[in-house]
Amino acid sequence: MKASQFFISTLKEAPADAEVVSHQLMMRAGMIKRLGAGIYNYMPMGLRVIRKVEGIIREEMNRAGAVELLMPVVQPAELWQETGRFDKMGPELMRVKDRHDRDFIIQPTSEEVVTDIARQELRSYKQLPRNFYHIQTKFRDERRPRFGVMRGREFTMKDAYSFDRDEAGATRSYEAMFAAYKRIFDRFGLEYRAVAADTGAIGGDLSHEFQVIAETGEDAIVYCPTSDYAANIELAEGVALLSVRAAAGAVMAKTSTPGKSTCADVAALLGLPLAQTVKSLVLATDELDEHGDVKKTTVWLLLLRGDHDMNEVKAGKVEGLKGGFRFATLAEIEEHFGCKPGYLGPVGLRKPVKVIADRTVANMADFVCGANEPDFHLTGVNWGRDLPEPDAVVDIRNVVEGDPSPDGKGVLAIQRGIEVGHVFFLGTKYSKAMNANYLDETGKPQLMQMGCYGIGVTRILGAAIEQNHDARGIIWPISIAPFQVVLCPIGYDRSADVKVAADALHDELAAAGIDVLLDDRGERPGAMFADWELIGVPLRVVLSDRGLKEGLLEMQGRREAEAQKIAVAEVGAVVKARLSA
Amino acid sequence: MKASQFFISTLKEAPADAEVVSHQLMMRAGMIKRLGAGIYNYMPMGLRVIRKVEGIIREEMNRAGAVELLMPVVQPAELWQETGRFDKMGPELMRVKDRHDRDFIIQPTSEEVVTDIARQELRSYKQLPRNFYHIQTKFRDERRPRFGVMRGREFTMKDAYSFDRDEAGATRSYEAMFAAYKRIFDRFGLEYRAVAADTGAIGGDLSHEFQVIAETGEDAIVYCPTSDYAANIELAEGVALLSVRAAAGAVMAKTSTPGKSTCADVAALLGLPLAQTVKSLVLATDELDEHGDVKKTTVWLLLLRGDHDMNEVKAGKVEGLKGGFRFATLAEIEEHFGCKPGYLGPVGLRKPVKVIADRTVANMADFVCGANEPDFHLTGVNWGRDLPEPDAVVDIRNVVEGDPSPDGKGVLAIQRGIEVGHVFFLGTKYSKAMNANYLDETGKPQLMQMGCYGIGVTRILGAAIEQNHDARGIIWPISIAPFQVVLCPIGYDRSADVKVAADALHDELAAAGIDVLLDDRGERPGAMFADWELIGVPLRVVLSDRGLKEGLLEMQGRREAEAQKIAVAEVGAVVKARLSA
Repeated sequence: MKASQFFISTLKEAPADAEVVSHQLMMRAGMIKRLGAGIYNYMPMGLRVIRKVEGIIREEMNRAGAVELLMPVVQPAELWQETGRFDKMGPELMRVKDRHDRDFIIQPTSEEVVTDIARQELRSYKQLPRNFYHIQTKFRDERRPRFGVMRGREFTMKDAYSFDRDEAGATRSYEAMFAAYKRIFDRFGLEYRAVAADTGAIGGDLSHEFQVIAETGEDAIVYCPTSDYAANIELAEGVALLSVRAAAGAVMAKTSTPGKSTCADVAALLGLPLAQTVKSLVLATDELDEHGDVKKTTVWLLLLRGDHDMNEVKAGKVEGLKGGFRFATLAEIEEHFGCKPGYLGPVGLRKPVKVIADRTVANMADFVCGANEPDFHLTGVNWGRDLPEPDAVVDIRNVVEGDPSPDGKGVLAIQRGIEVGHVFFLGTKYSKAMNANYLDETGKPQLMQMGCYGIGVTRILGAAIEQNHDARGIIWPISIAPFQVVLCPIGYDRSADVKVAADALHDELAAAGIDVLLDDRGERPGAMFADWELIGVPLRVVLSDRGLKEGLLEMQGRREAEAQKIAVAEVGAVVKARLSA
Repeated sequence: MKASQFFISTLKEAPADAEVVSHQLMMRAGMIKRLGAGIYNYMPMGLRVIRKVEGIIREEMNRAGAVELLMPVVQPAELWQETGRFDKMGPELMRVKDRHDRDFIIQPTSEEVVTDIARQELRSYKQLPRNFYHIQTKFRDERRPRFGVMRGREFTMKDAYSFDRDEAGATRSYEAMFAAYKRIFDRFGLEYRAVAADTGAIGGDLSHEFQVIAETGEDAIVYCPTSDYAANIELAEGVALLSVRAAAGAVMAKTSTPGKSTCADVAALLGLPLAQTVKSLVLATDELDEHGDVKKTTVWLLLLRGDHDMNEVKAGKVEGLKGGFRFATLAEIEEHFGCKPGYLGPVGLRKPVKVIADRTVANMADFVCGANEPDFHLTGVNWGRDLPEPDAVVDIRNVVEGDPSPDGKGVLAIQRGIEVGHVFFLGTKYSKAMNANYLDETGKPQLMQMGCYGIGVTRILGAAIEQNHDARGIIWPISIAPFQVVLCPIGYDRSADVKVAADALHDELAAAGIDVLLDDRGERPGAMFADWELIGVPLRVVLSDRGLKEGLLEMQGRREAEAQKIAVAEVGAVVKARLSA
C-alpha cells in the first residue's frame, strides 16, 4: 500500500489527559481518537492492528474447534433477568429502554445469550462438546474510564463459551482453550504469563488470567522462577513464614509508644525488627432481619505481621466474612477495644471479637501489638499464655517477593501485568439459572457444564505498547504491526531513480505477501523517520539517490541503533528472511 | 472444513412469525436465530455469508480509495445536538443515559462522528478529497421490525463518507462510489438496478439507490427498457400524457351519479373511459404564529386523472406544500366545497382554494369531475371556459407502466426492488451544522462538501434470498455462499473407500483455495441433500461406493435438475472450472 492511499496522522505532543504511555503513543501515532470518556474512534492505523489481532485469535479459535457466530450488542433484559444479573450488576451494565419502554442492555459479555442459544440448539449429548465464540463490540460503563483503550467503556472482546456433558469434559474444553490462548499470545509476540486466578463464588481451581508483562500493569502477578507456579496476587498462597511457633522467651510488658500508631514507627522506637510486630485490622459483619435492618453486628480482628498487607479477596473467603464485610466504625472499635485505632491488639478485649490470625502471625512468639490503650503497646506477647489461641488461622495476606513458593520449589517473585485474557470454568452457574439441559444417553436431562474464555482485543493494543516502546515511540511485534515494513524513499517526488526503485521494491514485497507501506508523501527524511518510529513499524528500508548510485539501500529494525547497508538486488530476500525469523 | 468442526442446524418448518420467504429460509437454514423483535443472532452459517459480503465490500471500497476506520456504536449526544438530529429524529433513534446521566445514542449512522473527525483531521485543501468508511453494528428502533434481517433493529451497515473541497470534487467522489457500488453488486452476483432517488431537503440530483430486484420488494422501481433511465417511483418523472390540450368539444353538464363516489364508478356509470375523469384530493397547510398556534390555514385542491395516484413525495415539493401538509378535515372540505368527499371538483368553489393540476390533467378537455353537490358530477368540463386555469401545473402523480420515459427514449416499466445500497450527495448539510472547514489555497476557511454511501450488509442476505430461492430452499450466488461446494459422501462412516475419496477431494479443493465443506455427519442421503438444498450451497458433489467402483462422482449445481457424472480424476478440475466460470 502507498501512504497516499492511506490515512496517516501523527501528533508531536500527546493530549494532556493521556496518563499512560500506551494511551499517549496511540493518540500521537494516530491509532485512536477520543470521542468521549472511554469511547474511541479506531483510526485506520489502529484498526489495522485490531484486524491482525482478531485474525490471529480467529485462526487459533477455529483450530481449537470453536465455531464463530455473532451475538447482538443490544440484548433483551429478559435473559439477564433469568440469571439475576439485570438487577445484581451495578451501573457498569448499560441499561436502555426501547420505544415501547421495554428493557434492554448493551452487552458487557454474552453468557445469557449464548446459554439461550445452547438450551435451544444443543439438546442431545451427541451435540456436545460445543464451543461458540464471537468477536464483538462490548460496553461497560466504567465509573472512571482511563488509560485509553486499557480501561475504556466501549471495546472489542473475543468471548467464547464452551458447553460440555460433565466436569471432565468441561476440563478438557478448558485445557483446549488454555492451549489455544498460549498459541495466540505466542503469536502476538508478547511477553506474557498465564497465572492462576481467583474463581470467586464458583470455586474450584480452573481460572487463569493471561497477563502481558509490563511495569505499568495494574495487576501484581506472583511466580516462582524455579518452578511453573504463577498466580494473581489475589490468589497466590501465603505460607506460614515460621514453620513452628517458638517457645515464649520474654515476659509480656506494656511499653509507652506515644504517637507511634504504625508498626513501622513502633518497631523503630523499640529497636525491634518490623517482622516482630503484629498489625490489627478491625472488620464488621451485619446480620439483617426480614426488613433489611441490622439485627446483629459481629466485630472481627484480623492480625497480620507488621510488614504484611491484608488480601481482601482472601479475607472475603474466611468463614463468616463470605457474605460481605466492612471496616468497623470508630464507635464499634472504641466499644470493643476501649481504644482508638493505632494502639489496638488482641490482648484483653472488652467485648467478644472474632480473632483471625494470618498463618504467619499464628506461629509468632514474643510479638509486639497494641495494648488497647492510647500511646501504649505490648511487647513479649505469646499465644496461649497472654491471650487465647485465635478463633481461626487463615492465609489472609498478600505474598511478598522472597516468600517460599507454595509448591515448595523455590521463592516467589512478583511482576506487574496487564490482564488481557481470562479462561474460566463456570460450571452450571448459568445453565442452572437458565435451565440449559441436554438429554444424556438414557434420555435424562442434565445441566450443561460451561466455561467462558475472553480476550480483550482492543486492550491488547495498549498492553503491547506498554511492554514495547521507547522514547521515540511504539515498537510493534511483527505479527500485529500495522505494517511489517515501511519503505522510506528520500526524494520520491523529485528523483525518478528513487521512485522507480521504491515502486519496484514495494511491488516485489507486496507480491510476496508482505504487508508493506511505501511512504510516498514526500516528507523530509527527519519527519518521515520520526513518524514511522512513533508508529512503530518493525522494519524500515530507506532508498536514496546516493545509496542507489552505489547499488545500496539501508535497512533498520525498529529496535536497532544502526542501519545496515544492503545491495538492492538482495533486499527483497533479506526483508523476507528478517520477517520470517 | 468438515461439518463436524462446524455447526449446522436446520429446521423442517419455519416459525409462524416469519412472514417472508427470506426470513423463513434463513431461520430454517440456521443462518439466524431470533433474540428479540428485530434482533437476531447470526449463527455460524449466516455469519459466513456476512463475512463474504463484507469482504467484497471492503476490497472494492479500498480499491476506490476509501480508508477503513471504526467508529463507536455508543456515541455522545453532544455531536447529535450540534446537527439537531438528537431532538429531530423520532424514536427510531435509540437514546441512552450513562451512569452520570449524560445522554448518548446507539448509532443508526455516523455522519456526526465522521464529520467531527474530519473537522479535526482534515484542515488543509491538500488533505482532500478523503473518504472514510466503517463496517459496524447499527441500531434503529423500528416501530414495527419485520421481515427478518430486511427490517431489523440491530443490523450491520457499511457506511462511507466523502469530504471534498467543492461540488465538482464531491461529484467525482460520488461517481467513484457509484462505480464501486456497481462493482460490489456485480460481484455479489445479484440482479440489481441503480435508480435515481429523491434527495429530499438537500436538492440536486445526486442520489441513487441500489435495488436488488425481487417480486417481494417493498419499493417500486421505474425504468426504461430501451434506455438507461431508472428511478425510484418517488422520483420518476410523470410527463403530460396529452401533449396539448384539445379544444372543448362538449357543453358542461351536471349529471346524477347517486352513490358513485369514485372515478371508476362514475366512468362505469357514464360509459366513459376512466382516463376522462379527474380525481380531487383536498390538502391543507397551516401557518403558525409565534406561540405555535394556527394563524392561517390554506386549503389545496390537487387534481389527478382518475386512473392516477398522488405521489406524496412530489406533492411535498410543490411551492407552498414544502413546509409540510396534511389531508383536509371533513369540516374544512365542507366549508370550502359545500359538499362531502366523493363529489368534489374544481368548478364553482365557495371559498378560495389553491388548485394544483397534474401535468396530464392540465391538458385534458371535456373531462368529468365532481359537481360539489352530493350525488352529482359534471361532464364536458373545460379549463378556461368552465373554470379558471389552475394555480399551478406540476407533476404530482406516480408514473405507471407504459408511460413515456422522461428521456423520450421509450416507455416505462416497473419492477419491485429491495433497497440495499444508497449513494447520496450531502453537500454542506453536516459540515455547515458542525463547522467542518478546511483552509483553501489562499488560507481561507471553506466548508467541506460531503457525500454518504451506505450498504446494508445484513439486509443483502435477505435480498439475495428473496431473489434466489425455490421450493427446496436458498440458492446462493457463488461469491457470497456460506460454502462454494459441499461434498456429500454416502456412507462416510461405513465405507473406507468413500471416506478416503471424500477426504482426498476435500483436501485437494481446500488446497486450491475453494471454500469446501465435507459433510461427515453420517446423515442419510435424503436428509443430507435436503439440508444442503435448504442452505443453498451452489455446487454439490456426491460420493458413493457404487459410483466410486466405476470411478465416478456426481456433481449437481443448485439450480440444475440433474446430476452430472464425472470421473474421479477430473472432478477437481471440473469443480474449479465451474466456480470460476
